[in-house]
Amino acid sequence: MYTIDLNCDIGEGYGNYQLGNDQEIVKYITSANIACGFHAGDPATMDATVKLAIKHNVRIGAHPGLPDLNGFGRRIMHITAKEAYQLITYQVGALFGFVKVNNSNLYHVKPHGALYNLAANDQEIAEAIAQAIYDIDSDLTLFGLSHSHLTKAGEKLGLKVAHEVFADRSYQEDGTLTPRTVTGALLTNDEQAMNQVIQMIKTGTATTMQGNKISIKADTICLHGDSPNTLPFVQQLHNRFKKEEINLLTNS
Amino acid sequence: MYTIDLNCDIGEGYGNYQLGNDQEIVKYITSANIACGFHAGDPATMDATVKLAIKHNVRIGAHPGLPDLNGFGRRIMHITAKEAYQLITYQVGALFGFVKVNNSNLYHVKPHGALYNLAANDQEIAEAIAQAIYDIDSDLTLFGLSHSHLTKAGEKLGLKVAHEVFADRSYQEDGTLTPRTVTGALLTNDEQAMNQVIQMIKTGTATTMQGNKISIKADTICLHGDSPNTLPFVQQLHNRFKKEEINLLTNS
Amino acid sequence: MYTIDLNCDIGEGYGNYQLGNDQEIVKYITSANIACGFHAGDPATMDATVKLAIKHNVRIGAHPGLPDLNGFGRRIMHITAKEAYQLITYQVGALFGFVKVNNSNLYHVKPHGALYNLAANDQEIAEAIAQAIYDIDSDLTLFGLSHSHLTKAGEKLGLKVAHEVFADRSYQEDGTLTPRTVTGALLTNDEQAMNQVIQMIKTGTATTMQGNKISIKADTICLHGDSPNTLPFVQQLHNRFKKEEINLLTNS
Amino acid sequence: MYTIDLNCDIGEGYGNYQLGNDQEIVKYITSANIACGFHAGDPATMDATVKLAIKHNVRIGAHPGLPDLNGFGRRIMHITAKEAYQLITYQVGALFGFVKVNNSNLYHVKPHGALYNLAANDQEIAEAIAQAIYDIDSDLTLFGLSHSHLTKAGEKLGLKVAHEVFADRSYQEDGTLTPRTVTGALLTNDEQAMNQVIQMIKTGTATTMQGNKISIKADTICLHGDSPNTLPFVQQLHNRFKKEEINLLTNS
Repeated sequence: MYTIDLNCDIGEGYGNYQLGNDQEIVKYITSANIACGFHAGDPATMDATVKLAIKHNVRIGAHPGLPDLNGFGRRIMHITAKEAYQLITYQVGALFGFVKVNNSNLYHVKPHGALYNLAANDQEIAEAIAQAIYDIDSDLTLFGLSHSHLTKAGEKLGLKVAHEVFADRSYQEDGTLTPRTVTGALLTNDEQAMNQVIQMIKTGTATTMQGNKISIKADTICLHGDSPNTLPFVQQLHNRFKKEEINLLTNS
Repeated sequence: MYTIDLNCDIGEGYGNYQLGNDQEIVKYITSANIACGFHAGDPATMDATVKLAIKHNVRIGAHPGLPDLNGFGRRIMHITAKEAYQLITYQVGALFGFVKVNNSNLYHVKPHGALYNLAANDQEIAEAIAQAIYDIDSDLTLFGLSHSHLTKAGEKLGLKVAHEVFADRSYQEDGTLTPRTVTGALLTNDEQAMNQVIQMIKTGTATTMQGNKISIKADTICLHGDSPNTLPFVQQLHNRFKKEEINLLTNS
Repeated sequence: MYTIDLNCDIGEGYGNYQLGNDQEIVKYITSANIACGFHAGDPATMDATVKLAIKHNVRIGAHPGLPDLNGFGRRIMHITAKEAYQLITYQVGALFGFVKVNNSNLYHVKPHGALYNLAANDQEIAEAIAQAIYDIDSDLTLFGLSHSHLTKAGEKLGLKVAHEVFADRSYQEDGTLTPRTVTGALLTNDEQAMNQVIQMIKTGTATTMQGNKISIKADTICLHGDSPNTLPFVQQLHNRFKKEEINLLTNS
Repeated sequence: MYTIDLNCDIGEGYGNYQLGNDQEIVKYITSANIACGFHAGDPATMDATVKLAIKHNVRIGAHPGLPDLNGFGRRIMHITAKEAYQLITYQVGALFGFVKVNNSNLYHVKPHGALYNLAANDQEIAEAIAQAIYDIDSDLTLFGLSHSHLTKAGEKLGLKVAHEVFADRSYQEDGTLTPRTVTGALLTNDEQAMNQVIQMIKTGTATTMQGNKISIKADTICLHGDSPNTLPFVQQLHNRFKKEEINLLTNS
């Protein structure tokens, strides 16, 4: 038997603004990455989203981002490693407040957007982020791009690390994602995307655009909460998992 | 023997901006109220200020404010009690992150500026704030205006409560502060201010502007970190405390 | 023949967040109130919204709000009259930038949310806002609640003033809106709301909840862009205007 | 006779925070670059700073920055050229509001910090910024690093351009500033810095670190308002200019 985690970013509204269909998507995932107020989210949204995750027995994680609400944390900013450490500490702490007042537990941390990319590609930033998480609570699980600087930094520290893979993205020979600017970067066919997921889980491999098999570690699959296709896709994926005898992680 | 706590707001800079003389004032206080990013403070400032308090063995408290950096949290905003609960939870959690990564403890929470005044005067807001602190950690101490809705709300919940008094403000018959708009609201004479403090500590009373003695509970004295007179005043106060055999709280 | 203006708040998204159905609603209005970055809106949204208004030949107005993005400018803040003057100047100036680079004209200013209410009820704030608009450009038109401090302040200065009325709100004996907390404050029947509008335009009166006729000045009707009913309502209203021989203001 | 402009960034406080010694420095400069609310500045500060510049008959310019108050606009952000255009438009417009209500004129625009550097080094960003300024008002003067992409973009459009030089920075063979990380980047000797300025003004050349003379265009000299040495330095510079018969630009 195989076990897999499905994670999704939720709680990415802000004040009067809604984003994504959290109420539905939360029913199909096992880990929730909750925005912490820098790229999205605010105290009221965080409180409501923590309650929503608890209600559906979904693991709660912090989803800290760059301080760029207007750019939704997607614009690279040249921050120092020390700033990365402090940004993580602040935001994870803030979410931890809501986890505590709601009598729940914080399970993981996954950086958002440009901070996720910085952490994947820049060793110094990666190590600062892993260190911050470790210093806050060494029992937390770090979610990072599979085979990236971030997962390496976490493993070096002895943190629990979840290697994240993408159903709808193709992989290159070196295990990195094909950049979005390259044709074939996105798997637009749902069947093909599901096949890639099954292969990753069962064999620990992915087939690259060039047709070669590479080794890939898949602990958790990322779903995009703000895409209209996510809900039907994850429903199909649940059915496929049943046939393939793949279990979803349980929050026990 | 009497024991008293001296508290001061520190860490109220932001980014490139400095405010107050934290490096000096921290040597003379026993409790530090550290800004949490809404009215002042940011991740880098909070991290540095927590380290400063630890270095000087000063108790660390959260100093949450209204989300109004431009107005320094001094403008009343019509927030709901639920919003007050969530603002407190977010900010106390964020500071708690820095306390954890620096291997220290969070001791107290004191609301800032307009939020402090709202909490003193509005029972519903006061109860929401006390409840948030209790839900985050029921061992925290709530700092509030002596004999206000906030201290009452804390006591009702069973929170540890520190009644705060002011050296440089005169009191009215009902135990409230004389409003700043009234002549005589401020005690501009240092000797007079120190006498008031000693009287409060030793006899549990204050003499009102009308010349009557009223009962007043004094657990902690507020110092204003951004006033140029604070440093010489607190140095005098330390000397006076020695003569009067009043001990400062120790952080043990 | 009668002539009326229909105004609506648009451009109230922010960054990644959308709000309302600007693309459709803009086809049915004659004046657009465009958010200026404090309660909603940002440089990209303002640029796109100015272009949208130009494309549909709709008059462009600034819609400045309180500096409270998280509360969407709907929470009262205790600002001074001087702060009100400066908030208006900043935001109207910012929108004016986009009007200039798009070779268009700025026509009016309508304060948003809590700032609109402050301006209606507080004479000092009202006069500061009117003065700021006058000082920026004395040819601008001030939109304010009919018979309020704001419209009075504008008229006193010699500004062009548009008295704003609401289709879906009932009026009290003194010409003010029935507070939302009172039963009967909202006209939920579209036919009734349209009848009230027609009566205001043709007779300059409204019938109060008590059944009495009061005098009311109606230069512009406010539509709520974020309500799902607004689009069908304004379409009906256009048809009704044709039957009643009421013309919409043209932007010539 | 030679004529030179001395410019300095002022109005870089925010809310309760002060920065620099605007009240003194304004007496010695001929052009003021006023922060517009993104990296520093706010409506109250902008209003007061515009009034200060008017009082001292100093030319008023906009000093727009990246939307990063916490980083004081000094952290590079990966914005698009379109975003640069919109950031400039918003901020120049906002300052224009204060210029109008104070019955003055806007004279120039100088980007701040990381935006200045992006504009110097990235042709696409440079052209977007120049275009925004041109579209707002083609009579404005663009201040940019001498011989950079920004000044080139302005000249291509037909904008008035002021080439900016630095008294305290050494120059490289290709006319660019020696990076701060290189020894000898800063001229720490005031006499040497003044000599460089005089040479630039009188001969249109600078002597590089390697000892060669290169051509350099010097229309305006940048003074750093937040350095404690600026005030004594600019006073010396005024005396030196008298001896050398170099006039300061007059605002007539």
